This record gives sequence, structure tokens and C-alpha cells, in this order.
Amino acid sequence: MKVVIRKAEKEDCPRLLELIKELAVYEKAPEQVTVSLAHFAESGFGDKPLWWAFCAEVDGKIEGFALYYIRYSTWKGQRMYLEDIIVTEAMRGKGLGKQLFDRLIQEAREKRFAGITWQVLEWNEPAIHFYKKYDADFDPEWVNCSINV
Amino acid sequence: MKVVIRKAEKEDCPRLLELIKELAVYEKAPEQVTVSLAHFAESGFGDKPLWWAFCAEVDGKIEGFALYYIRYSTWKGQRMYLEDIIVTEAMRGKGLGKQLFDRLIQEAREKRFAGITWQVLEWNEPAIHFYKKYDADFDPEWVNCSINV
Repeated sequence: MKVVIRKAEKEDCPRLLELIKELAVYEKAPEQVTVSLAHFAESGFGDKPLWWAFCAEVDGKIEGFALYYIRYSTWKGQRMYLEDIIVTEAMRGKGLGKQLFDRLIQEAREKRFAGITWQVLEWNEPAIHFYKKYDADFDPEWVNCSINV
Repeated sequence: MKVVIRKAEKEDCPRLLELIKELAVYEKAPEQVTVSLAHFAESGFGDKPLWWAFCAEVDGKIEGFALYYIRYSTWKGQRMYLEDIIVTEAMRGKGLGKQLFDRLIQEAREKRFAGITWQVLEWNEPAIHFYKKYDADFDPEWVNCSINV
């Protein structure tokens, strides 16, 4: 089994969106994925990229990825916001998540971000267990809010 | 009392940072504000702006502001992330917050963002009360995580 961690390219977008939908099913919210492939690809690889990602390829097939954008914290400055980290069900427990996460840390250091932030569902025990290995800080005091416009 | 809502300019940065620190005290985390004025100004008004803001001026003095960045949601696409909305203590209850929030909604529509998201501290009742007027969705299921790098 040959694992390669590499930057995502525009051609990867259809497969990435497939995995995003797989994750949304796991997170019990598949109907929430309303982004289109065209908009997704343009946002990552257009004139003003808004997101960046790394793929985990196993024998040439993308079996996981991590996607981030830059968040601007008025307390901390620029931080990496890890929007998604996904490994396909068949490939879990083989260290792909760790390789992706380690690559993110390397990227955050290279780009001089003041840390990495993300969110986890409070019932997602395997993910929480994974993040604890990185000595992550967990803060449940903030509530997510949103409106449509 | 003359209230003007306008886009923030680079010259406003020292005052904005003052208000950010005031809010951090209210949120019981003043030691968390470690961003420098130079980095803050550069991130908003350099070659690649990462944040945008509106000021509420009362008789020529900035008494509140709202600051956002663009978040990339793999479910929703581009959304406005409202990082901070602040009104000085002396000027609360006069409608400045509403004027700022309404201006954000207008901006989100103009820039075709798929909604506005933000976070509120679970014990911040006045803020929660304010957001309820906008029929905001509250989702306490996600926990904030972070690491330094």
C-alpha cells in the first residue's frame, strides 16, 4: 500500500466533493451539502483562492483529504481553519489521518499561521480521541449561529 | 446624536484594536489578544485583505464596529463569518448594533455570500437575545478545538 500526501489540484474536485458528502452523511446532515462542483472548484482554484487542501492517495486513488481556509482572528491574527479532514471508511486506522494532520501542521508553520483551529461534533468520539493525541484545546463554551440572507 | 455607518479604513485600526480589547475583557479573556497593530492593519489593508469591517461613528467617534472574513464552507460555499460585533458600553441600547448588523446583511447579499455565521458565548444573554431578533439558528453541538504550531 503506497500512500502519498500531496496538494490538491483542480482535477481532484469531483472526488473531494464525493468525500465531503460521505462525511456529511456520517455527521448526520447530508441534506446540508448544497455547494455546486463549479463553485467549489472556482473557490479553490480561481483568481482568488479561498481554500487549500491536501490529498491522501493510496495506490493512486484519493482516500482522504484535509481542507483549510485562512481565518482571521482579531485575537490571534491569521490562523489555519481546518474545515474538513476525512478518510474513507475502508481506509481508517491506517494512519492516513495522522499523515494529513502532520502535513497541515507543517503548512501552518511554513505560512506562519498563529495556530490551527477547527470544530468537532460533541458526540464524535473517534475524532475527539484523535485530536487529543495532538494535545488540542477543547472549548465547548461557544455556540454556532447562522442566518440565511 | 449623529450616527454614520461606514466602511473601516486603515487609519481606524488603532481604535478598532482598542475596542477588540474591550470586548475581550467582557468575554473574560483579555490575555488572549496577542495580535499586533501592524499585523492587524496589514491583514485588513495589505495586498491580500483577509478581513473587512464597518464602523459605527457617533458624532465623529467610532463607538462600535463589525468585522468579518470570508469563510469557506464545504457544505455551503462562501459565507460571511462575523468575527466581532462590538458597541461601547456607553452607547449600548441606542440601536448601533442593529444598524451594524443590518449593514452586514446588505453586504452579504451584495457579495452573494450563502449566509452569515458567527459564534456566541453560551452565557452571553444580551447577545443571544439580540441575535434571536434575526431568527438566527443556534447550534451548540460543535466544540471549538485549537492547537498552537
